[in-house]
Amino acid sequence: MAYEEITIEGRNAVTEAFRSGRTVDRLYVLDGCQDGPILTIKREAKKQDTVIKYVTKERLDQLSETGKHQGVIAVAAAYAYGSVDDMLAAAGQKKEPPFLFLLDGIEDPHNLGAIIRTANLAGAHGVIIPKNHAVGLTPAVARTSAGALNYTPVAKVTNLARTIEDLKRAGLWFVCADMGGTPMYDLDLRGPVGLVIGNEGEGVSRLVKEKCDMTAAIPMKGDIDSLNASVAAGVLAYEIVRQRLG
Amino acid sequence: MAYEEITIEGRNAVTEAFRSGRTVDRLYVLDGCQDGPILTIKREAKKQDTVIKYVTKERLDQLSETGKHQGVIAVAAAYAYGSVDDMLAAAGQKKEPPFLFLLDGIEDPHNLGAIIRTANLAGAHGVIIPKNHAVGLTPAVARTSAGALNYTPVAKVTNLARTIEDLKRAGLWFVCADMGGTPMYDLDLRGPVGLVIGNEGEGVSRLVKEKCDMTAAIPMKGDIDSLNASVAAGVLAYEIVRQRLG
Repeated sequence: MAYEEITIEGRNAVTEAFRSGRTVDRLYVLDGCQDGPILTIKREAKKQDTVIKYVTKERLDQLSETGKHQGVIAVAAAYAYGSVDDMLAAAGQKKEPPFLFLLDGIEDPHNLGAIIRTANLAGAHGVIIPKNHAVGLTPAVARTSAGALNYTPVAKVTNLARTIEDLKRAGLWFVCADMGGTPMYDLDLRGPVGLVIGNEGEGVSRLVKEKCDMTAAIPMKGDIDSLNASVAAGVLAYEIVRQRLG
Repeated sequence: MAYEEITIEGRNAVTEAFRSGRTVDRLYVLDGCQDGPILTIKREAKKQDTVIKYVTKERLDQLSETGKHQGVIAVAAAYAYGSVDDMLAAAGQKKEPPFLFLLDGIEDPHNLGAIIRTANLAGAHGVIIPKNHAVGLTPAVARTSAGALNYTPVAKVTNLARTIEDLKRAGLWFVCADMGGTPMYDLDLRGPVGLVIGNEGEGVSRLVKEKCDMTAAIPMKGDIDSLNASVAAGVLAYEIVRQRLG
């Protein structure tokens, strides 16, 4: 397997990469930049003996894949995908009922990044995405995840419907987001649960929806059709958090 | 005042612009494109006597400001800002306690668009943004709002802290999002309420926070610092919706 490198861009993302213990191969910093966040990053880099290269803005622009480097770019090994088994093991270790996100074809890197961030903060044990017709762990996703990618595993599977079947055998219940479903407050979401979020335009696909045990609707009082996918994921995830706390 | 034009790009956004009764000055359609959504848009355009121009992909790319036109661009008058008084009047007409969003310096157009979308679906009466240090109603915001901008008014104010004071005299309570606050489930958010969301990096500014009556914390179980701003706005808005339904 080829060794793949990715760029981690922006102050938050680079700081989080160091903090989480990730191995950064090289750090590029805008020459002359001396503000607080940059000094913190440089201190972290020195602790870990990371090579620091001072470069011009033009060079950073050239290296940047997102166009938003904020004066700092770290180069590291590409994010490794986790496995579904590891997620279940992590839940077991924490003595928590498993809580997984399953994304049925999220295409926008901003949405994927924001959802990984939400999964981390809502205490989920991992995020499962399909191999095809979906965005993977690109630098833009890493950046929008604001560091969550360092803590929350993301697994890539060939067939989401089959993964749901396997996980049902492991005791999980599946709830998918859909306007036509039961109001989310009326569902019992406290057990081992997989939250299924659909594609931005088309929602959850028929094959995946058929495998789900429950369909949860977010109450909609307005004039348009649907929430942004990452917002919907956040609202549903926090309904699960609320019920588990209660 | 100069007459400003904006482009509305993408199928959802253009369809919603027509549906909401917005006056479209010109419609550009990719020549030869005959699929369902495009035919619907053309039918709407003919109903409203909108000039339709059939153009090449190159011409659409040239006209596009977001780079994501999906074969259709409408040109219309720039989105007009609403007024705070109109928002209160709309709440009064619907006999609902006012529910407003106040955004303290949201910079990312994707976040602003997603928040306007959430405000619409959560049944809020409007979104208030500051004149400075914040993104305004750009085409990218219109596009990410998925049509919500046609229904939910957005007002621009000079001084957010002063607007909060004025609205307090009109009976509103203000709650701001902050990690250090009271868990959101323990607050009473059923009355006339203004939900204050801070800037992506720095949160709610000190001056604005001092004016707020309550500080609401979203429970955080993970390793990183904060949710994406539009996800946090969604989670808090839906806690308000849940309490109002209950």
